[in-house]
Amino acid sequence: MKYRQLIVLSLMLIAGDLCSGQTDKPAITEDFKPSTLNQPGQEYPQVNSQGYARFRIIAPEAQSVVVSLGLGGTRRGTPLTKAADTSWVGTTAGPMEEGFHYYHVTIDGGVFNDPGTLNFYGSTRWESGIEIPAHDQDFYALKDVPHGMVQQILFPSKSTNTSRRAFVYTPPGYNQDQSKRYPVLYLQHGWGEDETAWTNQGHANLIMDNLIAEGKIKPFIIVMTYGMTNDVKMGGIRNFDIKPFQTVLLDELIPYIDTNFRTLADQPHRAMAGLSMGGMETKTITLARPDVFSHYALLSGGIYAPEDIKDKSAVKLIFLSCGSFENPTGIMKATTALKDAGINSVSFISENTRHEFQTWRRSLYELAPLLFVR
Amino acid sequence: MKYRQLIVLSLMLIAGDLCSGQTDKPAITEDFKPSTLNQPGQEYPQVNSQGYARFRIIAPEAQSVVVSLGLGGTRRGTPLTKAADTSWVGTTAGPMEEGFHYYHVTIDGGVFNDPGTLNFYGSTRWESGIEIPAHDQDFYALKDVPHGMVQQILFPSKSTNTSRRAFVYTPPGYNQDQSKRYPVLYLQHGWGEDETAWTNQGHANLIMDNLIAEGKIKPFIIVMTYGMTNDVKMGGIRNFDIKPFQTVLLDELIPYIDTNFRTLADQPHRAMAGLSMGGMETKTITLARPDVFSHYALLSGGIYAPEDIKDKSAVKLIFLSCGSFENPTGIMKATTALKDAGINSVSFISENTRHEFQTWRRSLYELAPLLFVR
Repeated sequence: MKYRQLIVLSLMLIAGDLCSGQTDKPAITEDFKPSTLNQPGQEYPQVNSQGYARFRIIAPEAQSVVVSLGLGGTRRGTPLTKAADTSWVGTTAGPMEEGFHYYHVTIDGGVFNDPGTLNFYGSTRWESGIEIPAHDQDFYALKDVPHGMVQQILFPSKSTNTSRRAFVYTPPGYNQDQSKRYPVLYLQHGWGEDETAWTNQGHANLIMDNLIAEGKIKPFIIVMTYGMTNDVKMGGIRNFDIKPFQTVLLDELIPYIDTNFRTLADQPHRAMAGLSMGGMETKTITLARPDVFSHYALLSGGIYAPEDIKDKSAVKLIFLSCGSFENPTGIMKATTALKDAGINSVSFISENTRHEFQTWRRSLYELAPLLFVR
Repeated sequence: MKYRQLIVLSLMLIAGDLCSGQTDKPAITEDFKPSTLNQPGQEYPQVNSQGYARFRIIAPEAQSVVVSLGLGGTRRGTPLTKAADTSWVGTTAGPMEEGFHYYHVTIDGGVFNDPGTLNFYGSTRWESGIEIPAHDQDFYALKDVPHGMVQQILFPSKSTNTSRRAFVYTPPGYNQDQSKRYPVLYLQHGWGEDETAWTNQGHANLIMDNLIAEGKIKPFIIVMTYGMTNDVKMGGIRNFDIKPFQTVLLDELIPYIDTNFRTLADQPHRAMAGLSMGGMETKTITLARPDVFSHYALLSGGIYAPEDIKDKSAVKLIFLSCGSFENPTGIMKATTALKDAGINSVSFISENTRHEFQTWRRSLYELAPLLFVR
């Protein structure tokens, strides 16, 4: 153990030397502020105006503390060093990309969360989260506008023999005008995440509130439930069986929603969208049941080919998106092919983002105005 | 540091010796199962049929790992020891009391959460939680009955210049019969907690669902918001100013609820209850504004004296409760005094529980059938 500690320490010193030797890097601006996702009253982690993140962990007797985030988007992480006050501190070697990032802290070989931050369900565990303020953060900010409600429902599921949870966003005014009925978007999370992701990480409710307040969209309901994506382990997507989820969604959840909410309960007023593995689910289910959904959206979740669509008249919209650091060419080519085949299709590429929530927040913002308008 | 480690190690060895020397203790039954509050797929922490808790933490290079829980309800905690596979394991020295407990893990002097469990907001931070199955757990179990909904609302608050969050429980059937209106219980958490506590830790929604399914109560709405209790530090309750919260509750939240939900918006159909410091808030606000609430409940949150009540005819119920390990005599004496003064009063003592959520779950279960029935 001693020998290993020495090696780790040496590597850290070398890394430190390399960094201080890099004279071409801009100086780090010392305007760090607590991340907006910190727990109440917590000073760390912090973010500066350039997008650097700084961490501080209290573990006086620890031998090594490494944050899983940093070094310009690679997976190498940020090792912290022990300060004079025995706290462990460190700053990412470069600016982070805009938006939300999951991370964790490895302390003496064990994986823990940063006690400073709120936790978010990703990678099949509740992880620490940090928010790098984005230039366009206004569209998902909490503003002084009428707010919709996010309702936790427990709906009966005979096929899985339990009550299952979903969250339902109803737009502002839903509870006032009792005669009005709304279209519905079924919105799926990705692998490792669950039904909490789209509101907690994605701010789907705030995006909707703001779009509605600006008169940019026709209000609709959003339903988010667990896509059972974590029943396969990482890399096992090929073995994923859509059937159990399809049964829950089509035979149990949709009838429950149409009974308990004032929906427009028909195919023209029903959309399905999903991010990443939720996109795969969306594609499979919409193609299997074109009688149920009319609007389809895959967010970093693959493409439709024209030959996938059996009855073009049943499809009102196909929306495909991804981050510019993902596969934008594939998305744009697919959209062109769909358009050429006479299918109303729209692509969106999120600038300077990867397979992360900033891509999907922006995608929802672009998608919402296109839904249920034709 | 070395010397300190040696002392800690020695103490741990001594403690181990003492334990193994206690021949009067019953043997630990090896029927440990994952706690019901574990994150999906996590095997630890575990609980056995006697109420012992067993922990397992991965931190191969750590020098010491101590769980804050254990030793029969004292605050001394459970030190873990390093197993052959380098994981840290340990079992509480005695059975834990029934119900929910907060805890954390101290690793090399730093405070972290157990990566195995879900987190719950208490002590002004998101903490690990463990559930010791209770003999009466059926009343808050998730059952195959109609479920109400828990809605997150963001209500405008001019006095605090932001949108504030509350959770609103609406009973099953709320969305079906659009003509029916309901009474409302305003239900407050304790110090260090927030508006998530009554559903996450308390299972208030499941308690209601089950009571309604059994026909034991008249359905009502529950509203839970942040009591601003954490704006004072521990021990500073004397300096707590009720005014800001009273303004939010009476001038902002109640009008919002009465506008956006189908409430019976008058004093006879409005109750206020709170646990611990939320009880102090309940007492202060109900006494200041007897025109707003008719039913008052303090759960481990103090008492009313007969002379506190200015207009007895305005009070329909006073409910006082606590755990049997708290101050049951005080609660029972106060209830008798209120009854003698002609005020409808009920006391409830939760057997073998302390200042913890099992006391408050049971209190809500006892309180609900008494509300809005006279």
